[in-house]
Amino acid sequence: MILTVTLNAALDVTYPVDRLVPGAVHRVGPPRRRAGGKGVNVARVLAALGEEVLATGFAGGATGAAFLADLPVPSAFVQIGGETRCTLTVLDAEATLFNEPGPLVTEPEWQAFLTRFRTLRADVVVLSGSLPPGLPDDAYARLIEAADAPVILDADGPALLHGLPARPALVKPNAQELRATGRTPAQLRALGAQAVAVSDGPRGLAVHLADGGWRATPPETHGNPTGAGDAAVAAFARGLRRGTPWPELVADAVALSAAAVAAPVAGDFDADRYTAAEIRPTPLPKEHE
Amino acid sequence: MILTVTLNAALDVTYPVDRLVPGAVHRVGPPRRRAGGKGVNVARVLAALGEEVLATGFAGGATGAAFLADLPVPSAFVQIGGETRCTLTVLDAEATLFNEPGPLVTEPEWQAFLTRFRTLRADVVVLSGSLPPGLPDDAYARLIEAADAPVILDADGPALLHGLPARPALVKPNAQELRATGRTPAQLRALGAQAVAVSDGPRGLAVHLADGGWRATPPETHGNPTGAGDAAVAAFARGLRRGTPWPELVADAVALSAAAVAAPVAGDFDADRYTAAEIRPTPLPKEHE
Repeated sequence: MILTVTLNAALDVTYPVDRLVPGAVHRVGPPRRRAGGKGVNVARVLAALGEEVLATGFAGGATGAAFLADLPVPSAFVQIGGETRCTLTVLDAEATLFNEPGPLVTEPEWQAFLTRFRTLRADVVVLSGSLPPGLPDDAYARLIEAADAPVILDADGPALLHGLPARPALVKPNAQELRATGRTPAQLRALGAQAVAVSDGPRGLAVHLADGGWRATPPETHGNPTGAGDAAVAAFARGLRRGTPWPELVADAVALSAAAVAAPVAGDFDADRYTAAEIRPTPLPKEHE
Repeated sequence: MILTVTLNAALDVTYPVDRLVPGAVHRVGPPRRRAGGKGVNVARVLAALGEEVLATGFAGGATGAAFLADLPVPSAFVQIGGETRCTLTVLDAEATLFNEPGPLVTEPEWQAFLTRFRTLRADVVVLSGSLPPGLPDDAYARLIEAADAPVILDADGPALLHGLPARPALVKPNAQELRATGRTPAQLRALGAQAVAVSDGPRGLAVHLADGGWRATPPETHGNPTGAGDAAVAAFARGLRRGTPWPELVADAVALSAAAVAAPVAGDFDADRYTAAEIRPTPLPKEHE
């Protein structure tokens, strides 16, 4: 069982329009609504791979109800008084995004989540995305400490840095998120991460380990890069559960990530491209901090 | 009791942003969500005036639940399988609007509404706004026939024109909606409307009757014209219930409408401006068709 944690879940809403014109009135085509958030995308990919998965996090209000109704995997979300956020994409020839702030999570709600989390057994835990307002910066450290299994942490900024001392099995910043920390992969390891995977879009993915690491690049793929990182995280979660060796696991993460780029919606992947991909990992030299 | 009917109700959502830039990612300030639709604005104004009011229409899905939870007046909405629409305003220095299509209303749901409507007793009935997909063009005619009270019809296009043969007590197109019908006020009366009120923003409001009519202009007012027409309709509904003479009623509708322009949100009005307004109606000559 893989447990995905999405503390700042979202209902992803898409508004098709002819052309977005600031100041104008737009007639919207049939809107699409889909349970979202990075952890939910990971759960979708895992479920499509045939993995047993359980999704948890916070949900509240009418948007939370719509989110839960759309979740395609078993779930154990904790109800909150606030309203689950929406992320809106206005779609013409390009995509214009509007990210609502997350709901305020109260201290009793956070304690209720910790209690619930401790009851959920998992072989691997995946912690994904931003922290909603109200949670302490070290919320992910508390969950890593409470977990009875290896933990993958896919976050950025303070949520990532404050999680490191709790020794997650793997962190997965993308190249831009890594730069924003002002740290090298070796430094993130020194701060507590057991492995550091850095994704860099078409330039590929590298996993930095104590004794070196592995890198692989995807085949040229056109499509929607949203959700590619979540697909890589899904591959890592399955691989950690199975004990897959790192070179094979890096190749698998790159193949699944490229197959996700080829699918139009985050959380989906192109199964034919995934099985057909031939990815050759190459070793990385041992880094110095 | 005044009964307001909002067949295509909406949850009005406002996203405050720094500046809307097509193609960009926007961080949204705390979103505001409010039960909306023209009939709901009328009900809000009537409730603020101290009138007994009951709101009905269709509501469905998670958005419908949020809509009903926010309704500030007693209500008797009919539940539908479809999802109540949102209308989104992205607000920077100007307002950019996105109107979702209404939910599909099935024939059994429409019949259920007619049955419910016949059980609701009212002194005046107000029918406001567009018809959701699935309803016949003559839906308003069916309601006017079923009503046991004078009916105000505030609609445009086919929903307005098909309602006229059922002889509504008053129709209230704005000047643009009147032009779109290709008809004069006298012609709308010939088609069945007992009185025709035409609102024209700062140029005022005219009520066309069989024997002439009345016109009045508002004081110069700056603000938000959305909801001004709904405030005029609220004034007419109260006046019809009380039997207020037309000249006094036209002056009252113009005063309340201007007070609504002075309030920032549709459905509100500036009570001080309303009570202070001195509006002098002038008679209109009898028209020829």
